[in-house]
Amino acid sequence: MKKLINDVESLLSESLDGFAAAHADIVTLGEGGQFVRRRSPKPGKVALISGGGSGHEPLHTGFVGHGMLDAACPGQVFTSPTPDQMLAAAQAVDTGAGVLFIVKNYSGDMMNFQMAAEMIDCDNATVIVNDDVAVENSTYTTGRRGVAGTLIVEKIVGAAAERGDGLAALKALGDSVNKATASMGVALTSCTVPAAGKPTFQIGADEMEMGVGIHGEPGRRRVRLASADDIAAELSGAILKDLSLKPGQEVLLLVNGFGGTPLMELYLMVNAVHKILDGHRLKIARCLTGSYVTSLEMAGCSITVSAMDAATLALWDAPVHTAALHWGM
Amino acid sequence: MKKLINDVESLLSESLDGFAAAHADIVTLGEGGQFVRRRSPKPGKVALISGGGSGHEPLHTGFVGHGMLDAACPGQVFTSPTPDQMLAAAQAVDTGAGVLFIVKNYSGDMMNFQMAAEMIDCDNATVIVNDDVAVENSTYTTGRRGVAGTLIVEKIVGAAAERGDGLAALKALGDSVNKATASMGVALTSCTVPAAGKPTFQIGADEMEMGVGIHGEPGRRRVRLASADDIAAELSGAILKDLSLKPGQEVLLLVNGFGGTPLMELYLMVNAVHKILDGHRLKIARCLTGSYVTSLEMAGCSITVSAMDAATLALWDAPVHTAALHWGM
Repeated sequence: MKKLINDVESLLSESLDGFAAAHADIVTLGEGGQFVRRRSPKPGKVALISGGGSGHEPLHTGFVGHGMLDAACPGQVFTSPTPDQMLAAAQAVDTGAGVLFIVKNYSGDMMNFQMAAEMIDCDNATVIVNDDVAVENSTYTTGRRGVAGTLIVEKIVGAAAERGDGLAALKALGDSVNKATASMGVALTSCTVPAAGKPTFQIGADEMEMGVGIHGEPGRRRVRLASADDIAAELSGAILKDLSLKPGQEVLLLVNGFGGTPLMELYLMVNAVHKILDGHRLKIARCLTGSYVTSLEMAGCSITVSAMDAATLALWDAPVHTAALHWGM
Repeated sequence: MKKLINDVESLLSESLDGFAAAHADIVTLGEGGQFVRRRSPKPGKVALISGGGSGHEPLHTGFVGHGMLDAACPGQVFTSPTPDQMLAAAQAVDTGAGVLFIVKNYSGDMMNFQMAAEMIDCDNATVIVNDDVAVENSTYTTGRRGVAGTLIVEKIVGAAAERGDGLAALKALGDSVNKATASMGVALTSCTVPAAGKPTFQIGADEMEMGVGIHGEPGRRRVRLASADDIAAELSGAILKDLSLKPGQEVLLLVNGFGGTPLMELYLMVNAVHKILDGHRLKIARCLTGSYVTSLEMAGCSITVSAMDAATLALWDAPVHTAALHWGM
């Protein structure tokens, strides 16, 4: 295993210390490094909290800050955070307007966030993200997995929370954005979880995993490596089938790298998907390209399409100041 | 070779088309995709032009826009752009105040930018970046290589150009920032140039290349994989020896991923380097972490330290709006 680490046991805490030092203007660490929180809380605002296993950076810690999350609870690599972490985060960032949890649909995350929700004594609600159209049920999941679309839910709901929307409205908005968002990914290589010390899965030199999950979980099928255009066609095809969009619909396109894919290839995928969406007469109103929801050093990418209207576009464009997304301020 | 591509021949042009489509609010492509230029030129401003082989994205195309570059000329992967590209870019973005070329110190880039400088009929000057302290002379280089410090030169000189500094002042500023900046990197794995189809170098499962170049060129020595703390100590040690900074000096720290390194590990390196710089009583005034000057999918990272004063810090903080760096506006 080749990694820039000192010790598997301390990897997460050392990385969080570096993150907090690098972004001291935006975040602070909660006690014992249990969570990352926004440095300057906004009184009277509904607090947005997410979290999940580490190894998907910049998700979620990189999205803490003005206009997005108030706190993120990182578990060990690919391991759910504990209810204690969530409870501590909620107590730290609730300013009286309640807490909205944004949770990717994995059994461990769901169970622990539900326990935290039952333990806290403030108003709370939960948005479950399950944008991955690749498979129903999977290694860690009942139903569909939550993947890169989580970023879009966190950004849009985050902007609405920042302007002062209430808990019920934010819960409804999050559910609505999740429903309008679909993703699917492909892996060319595996990743290696530090505590395991060996690749999560074996894959041949001419193979790819179509529909892979963000922990390297199996997708729809193991097939021969195809051209970028063919990959884009299969991913987009599954996404568009799920969303059933009408011609003329405005969409946000996210081409997301899994960690080991050069930006040059991601932009080539943007070009390939653009042609396909143009062919369906969909209008790409916004495009985000980069490695935002990763699987450590896995090579591959996911495509996410999210149907947008004027209201959600305005929320997407609203100012954000986090470690990983920053615009409009 | 596992890559998200259609054809090696069209990789660059397809990727540039995707880049231009994704960032149509910031850039446009020059004729025939010879260069990427800022969408809204600023009359009367000295035009900043950089370029070099592709495969280092987001460098340089991702730094075109307000407050940084006016144009970038991408060559094929790890191959210098041609004088024709640079000439076309200069003619497109010169608004009468002259052109400053920012060139990484590789023989091909140097020769071609020099030819372009001789061909154009406007005032021009060239800043040469050679921040890599690892080795003198290398595979493609006479003298020291230009690596991740290029980002810092482009940002600071870009901000000064945006406020209206003249050509001679910008040239002097660029030289001064370059002199105050030092970098060194380490590779854990090789990268694969698409046209070659196989890894640039072979490296054992327990080895690393200390002092590697951004094309996978040899560094100082091939050694056994060490801990992140030990790697940070060696890289920082070489950098600090070169810079000879006094205690209390303010610095910018850039922890740069080479493309295949998870963000989690880069932040762990931030933490490791922080401790070392603290030990030298250097003050990390700003910190940038991410994969900004890459070598395709190579795993590893570089450390860059740049001595700053109030004037250069203000230029670093000045608004920038490019595909890869965006703040203050």
